[in-house]
Order: sequence, then structure tokens, then C-alpha cells
Amino acid sequence: MKNNDSPAIQKLIELFSQFPTIGPRTAGRFVFHLLKAPKQEIDNLVAAIINLRSRVRLCEFCFNPFEPSPDKGQENKLCEICSNPLRQKSLLCITASETDLNSIEKTKKYKGIYFILGGTVSALKKTDLEKLRINELESRIKNRPEIQEIILAMSATTEGEATGLYLERFLKPFNKKITRLGRGLPVGGELEYADEETISSALEARK
Amino acid sequence: MKNNDSPAIQKLIELFSQFPTIGPRTAGRFVFHLLKAPKQEIDNLVAAIINLRSRVRLCEFCFNPFEPSPDKGQENKLCEICSNPLRQKSLLCITASETDLNSIEKTKKYKGIYFILGGTVSALKKTDLEKLRINELESRIKNRPEIQEIILAMSATTEGEATGLYLERFLKPFNKKITRLGRGLPVGGELEYADEETISSALEARK
Amino acid sequence: MKNNDSPAIQKLIELFSQFPTIGPRTAGRFVFHLLKAPKQEIDNLVAAIINLRSRVRLCEFCFNPFEPSPDKGQENKLCEICSNPLRQKSLLCITASETDLNSIEKTKKYKGIYFILGGTVSALKKTDLEKLRINELESRIKNRPEIQEIILAMSATTEGEATGLYLERFLKPFNKKITRLGRGLPVGGELEYADEETISSALEARK
Amino acid sequence: MKNNDSPAIQKLIELFSQFPTIGPRTAGRFVFHLLKAPKQEIDNLVAAIINLRSRVRLCEFCFNPFEPSPDKGQENKLCEICSNPLRQKSLLCITASETDLNSIEKTKKYKGIYFILGGTVSALKKTDLEKLRINELESRIKNRPEIQEIILAMSATTEGEATGLYLERFLKPFNKKITRLGRGLPVGGELEYADEETISSALEARK
Repeated sequence: MKNNDSPAIQKLIELFSQFPTIGPRTAGRFVFHLLKAPKQEIDNLVAAIINLRSRVRLCEFCFNPFEPSPDKGQENKLCEICSNPLRQKSLLCITASETDLNSIEKTKKYKGIYFILGGTVSALKKTDLEKLRINELESRIKNRPEIQEIILAMSATTEGEATGLYLERFLKPFNKKITRLGRGLPVGGELEYADEETISSALEARK
Repeated sequence: MKNNDSPAIQKLIELFSQFPTIGPRTAGRFVFHLLKAPKQEIDNLVAAIINLRSRVRLCEFCFNPFEPSPDKGQENKLCEICSNPLRQKSLLCITASETDLNSIEKTKKYKGIYFILGGTVSALKKTDLEKLRINELESRIKNRPEIQEIILAMSATTEGEATGLYLERFLKPFNKKITRLGRGLPVGGELEYADEETISSALEARK
Repeated sequence: MKNNDSPAIQKLIELFSQFPTIGPRTAGRFVFHLLKAPKQEIDNLVAAIINLRSRVRLCEFCFNPFEPSPDKGQENKLCEICSNPLRQKSLLCITASETDLNSIEKTKKYKGIYFILGGTVSALKKTDLEKLRINELESRIKNRPEIQEIILAMSATTEGEATGLYLERFLKPFNKKITRLGRGLPVGGELEYADEETISSALEARK
Repeated sequence: MKNNDSPAIQKLIELFSQFPTIGPRTAGRFVFHLLKAPKQEIDNLVAAIINLRSRVRLCEFCFNPFEPSPDKGQENKLCEICSNPLRQKSLLCITASETDLNSIEKTKKYKGIYFILGGTVSALKKTDLEKLRINELESRIKNRPEIQEIILAMSATTEGEATGLYLERFLKPFNKKITRLGRGLPVGGELEYADEETISSALEARK
């Protein structure tokens, strides 16, 4: 969206266009929204963005972003999941992203800890692999002999599968139990529209 | 779609509108298609519809439609699956419809036999239940002591769940092993967009 | 959808798959629908298809399908629109299909007569052009000197545009007023999502 | 999306959720994006937001946002369209929003000036009407006797129609020519799927 050749508008449209899922049209609507917003709202937004970076840090174990509470001492380096004494330290769930971690947390069924890999790989290209926190994962597993099971909680997409396969091979030498999420019919799924692989998995996993 | 008040067109639009998934607009397009089709195509269609009813019968065991081959004798009452000596007669898979049976057959992973229930129930209304082949199912199970496991292969929809629950209760007195299709992430499913119940099932069914 | 290798089922699935918008999956559902339908419904369907071809004919002027009423004499060759003395014979609207004719009739705003071209052309290929009723159109215009305006009522698609252009050139020698449907914002259309050409037309056609 | 109860994350998710078309899930993805972004990108974003408000102002005539160039003097109060001597000052186009203004500008067919109303009304509620720049519109028209035609460039939605009707009544006493965007088939529109009102308009506007 071109607007009057204002460089200030153009620059902000460009920056919002880098946000995930946002194209220039929606970025333009963001800018018009801000132009009409009361000054207080702009000030709040700027303050919140600055705050985010100064207050939120990534957990030293799992890389989950968290905000250390000022009244805590040493635990400040670990997120609330990792520092929770009730979570099972023997169970490690590897997710691709914070969003996937949150999806699993919301079920309230998982009682172990996590590790955020920071991405997925489609093919096993070196440049892709370098973006993953593989070295960090290795050191976590070496330093935590209490880990007994590692869940590869990847999406059932081509990329998720490739990442799972890669992790499986990488983790083999550590001699831990390695599991993957079960495949089958999702809630609401109809047999008629399910693909053959999903039905095969659902048949196999019947219980 | 109203056309020139021709009763012949209106009648056929009305009949095609009773086909599954077809509304009056598409029914109208069917009729225009037939009006323009060569006479031979119409004759073929009429012959094929008449043929269907005279040649195809429902399997006496599983209700799967099949076309008895003229050179077979007694087996003519059973479909090719039921009369196949290689299929395991100890394993019975109950599906709601022929379409669901075909979906499972296409996986080529299932080696047992089937029973087509003929529908699903949403609530346990008497009128809904009467449409299911419950009495036929009962007699099949009574007459086939070799059946060891019954798979309730229902869709993961509200109706599929309700039908599964009903069957589970109904089949309890027969003391067979009763199983259901596994739940989890379908092929292509992303953790980020999966609902909590599906993720819970996938976690539980990890392997 | 493959079912038990029954040739009767396969044949009918194949024939229904030739219906507009219908693929093999939906064709299969049609067949299962017919297999379960009461005999009376099948008989009705077969009768209605046979009836359609014996009772419905195409209007000798406009090619609109209609059912001649048995108590009329000579007018039996013309559809109800063409034989209606209240319709203006000076105004001819050319549509690509019966469906488009019906869409215009439903507005109840058009008082002239029609001609159904029988298709559209994308490029001006000879084989495509031969499918159109161009010769018939020519003879209609020659035999009806009372025609003053010809409306090219084509869709605003690439094919509709190409067909309109072709007709415009073809009809030029007849020295009639030739018009096209107005372009602009459709009901419900938002400026924000309209393309530049539509907005240009809407601006130009402002009133 | 709940994340670790971090108030800094929650606050920013909340603020992004107020952006047009953005829900909490996408707002959460924005926040994760910023958490992972290099510090430079955050600084740029904060600077661009602050810049937007300090550099961009609304045109004193049409309310279109623009960035005054430092080397211009008095014209600085008018946007580039309003201060362009080649634009016809006799033609005023009223749009609901900046986005709609931009949609029309992109056609490069409109040579007049604009006025941005700042919203639409669905019903003629007093609270809705107060959000529109009606008083400003009134003063513009009074002060510019050179205005001859006013185009009500509203979307063809229920709200656009209601706003157009309201403006028409409001502007009547000023005795200007008042026009609206033409209705008809949009580019790509098919007759078969067009509603009756659109076809009626397209027929009427034929040319």
C-alpha cells in the first residue's frame, strides 16, 4: 500500500510487513490504526515493546521466554516450568517453538519439562541445521542423567517428520527412551476424509 | 433454479436435489447437462441405474454392496471380503457406512471382516436407533463365536462418539474385546492448530 | 472410489463423474444413495430422466429448453419467453448458457428476448468457435429486422470478455446497437478489496 | 495465548490484539517474533512508531495522513493531493477511510480531491454519527464554492449504503451534484453467481 510517499509511513509498513503472517496491506492498516490512536496508546505500545526486551529473558534450560520475578534470587535463570519442583525432571519434551510448547501446556496433561529446539528442518541442509539448538540440546542431555524419556513433539507435517527423524538419529547414542506423539484421527476427524496413512495409524493404535 | 415452468425439468431437479450434497442449483446444472448430452449418454445412464439395482446386492453378512459373479454358486450371498478365506474371521470392524468401509480397505492394512451399521446416532433417540442394523449385528455376533475383537471404527465426530458409546454398551454382554480407532495428530496436522483433546490423546498414545 | 470391483457400481460411478462439478468420490456417494433408496425412488428417477428427453425441447428461436404444452398448436416451437407477446422483440440478450439466462430472468427487470450461445471461447480457436451457435445467431438477426439493441450479457471473466469481443466484431456488419453489462462494485463489494479495474469502472459509471 | 504468566508478554499481546484483524493467537506470534528479533530490529520498530507520530500529520482539508516536507512553507498543512494544482478542486470524493482513498488513487483515474469521513454508520445512531467528520465536511463545502460534484465513494455493503444515504440527505441543502459509484459485475464476476440486485444494476448500466 503506497501512501503519499511519506517515508515515515513507508518505513513502518515495511517493518510491520516482517511480522509473521503480515503482508503490506495489513501492515498499512496497522499504520492507519496507529495514526488515529490516542497518544497514550502509542506510548503504551512503545513502552511495552521496550519492556518486553528488558524484562523477558529466555530460560537457561529450555529457552522458554519468561519474566524473572524481582524477589527471586538464583532461580531467576529458569522459567516457571523448569523451576517448578513438581515437574518430572525425568521426562523431556522437545518442541519446535514456544507456540508448540504452549499448545502442549494448555492440555494440562504433561508433567515433565521441555526444550525448545528453535525451528524445524525440511531437508537436512547444514544451514538449516545450524539454526536449531542442537549443541544446547546435547549439553542439556549430558548434564541431566535423570532424563529417562525424550518426547519428540513435532507436528505431523513433512518438516516435523524430517526434524523428528534427525533428532532420533542424533539422540540415539544417549540411550534414552525416545517417543513420538501418537498419530490417528483428530477430534472431529471423519473417516471418509482421512488419508490412508492416518487411518492406518488409527487402526494400529486402536485400544 | 426455476426454468420456464417445465414440469419435466422441475421434477428431475427435485429428484437430483435429494442426492447427497446436491442443492437445487447443482441439480439444475445436472438437468442442463442431460438436456445437451447425446441420446446415447442418456440411454447409458438409464441402463446403468437399472442395472445397479438388478445386479448389485447387499452382502448377507456385512451389508457391503457387491455384484455376485454368475459362475459362483453358494458364495453369491457373501461379498468378496466375507467370502475371502484369507480374511481373519476373528476380527470384526463395525463401520457406519460403505464409504467408511472403503476408506479402511484402501489402507490395505486391515485383514479382518466388516459389518456396516447403516448410520450413526447423535443422541440416543429411539427413532435414530431404529435406523441402525442393531438386530442384525446382534445375530452376527451370536452366530460367530470365532469373533474375538470388535473394532468400533467410527469417525471422531460427536455423532461417531455417541454411536461408539452406544455400541460399547450394547456389545458389553457379549464379552468380546472391544477397541476403538486411535486418536492423535493426523498426517499433516500441526501442533499449533490442534485442539487440546487431540494433543492430549497424541501425548498419551506416544510411542 | 473403488468398491468390490462390481462392474455395475463402477459403471455408474463413471457416468455420474461426467456430471458437472462431480468427482469420483461424490459419484460414489450417489451410487450408495441409490443402492439404499426405495425401489419407487429409482423408478421415479429413471422415469424423470426418460421424460426429460421426450418432453423437453429447445426453443427454435433462443434454444432455451421448455416443455410444450399439449393444448397449444403452432407456438409449441417457441419457449414461453419467445412466445410471450408482452416481451419486446426489439431487444435481444445473448447469454452463454441457460443458467445465465435464468439468472437474468430472476431479476424480473429484463423485458426483451434471449439467444443462448451455448458456450464461451477463451482464445479464438476454431474448434472452440465451432461449438458456439454463431450461424444460428446470424440467421436470427437477419430474419428479425425488428431487433434494435443486442445486449452481450457475458460474465466479467476472461472467457466472457473474449466471447464478448468476438461477438462485437461478428455483429458489427449488422448495424445494431450493441451493449454490454455495466461494470462496477457488486452488492456487498468493499472498495478496499476491489481491484483497480472494477473501481475505475465504478468511478466512470457513477451517477 | 497464555505464556508463563509474564506480565510483559501478556501486556504486549493485549496491545497487539487491538490492532485491526489481529486476535490473541497472532498477537502472541508477534511477541515471539520480537523476542527472537535482533536488538537493532526492535530499536528500528520503536523509532519508526515514534517517528510516525511526530512526522506524519493529517491534511487540514481532507484528513489524509501525510509527511510535510521540511523545505515547504505554507503548503505544509495540506497533503500532496490537496496541494497539487493539477487536481480539480470542483470534484470532491468522500471516502470512509484512508484505505479507500488509496484504493481509488491507485486507479490513477480520479483527478479531483478527497475528504475522509473517518468511518461508516450502520444504523443512524447518534453515537455512530458523532464519530464521522460531519461538521468538518460541512465547513469544507461551505468554504469551497468551487465544488460542483460530490462523489459518495462508499463500499456496496449495508454500512456503506447507510452512510451514503445519510450523506445524501445531509448534503441536499448544499445544492451540489451528488453521485455514487456505479454498480455492476466486478472484474472476474460470473453471472451465474451474481445476486439479482447486481445483475439488475448491470443491466440498467449497460452501455
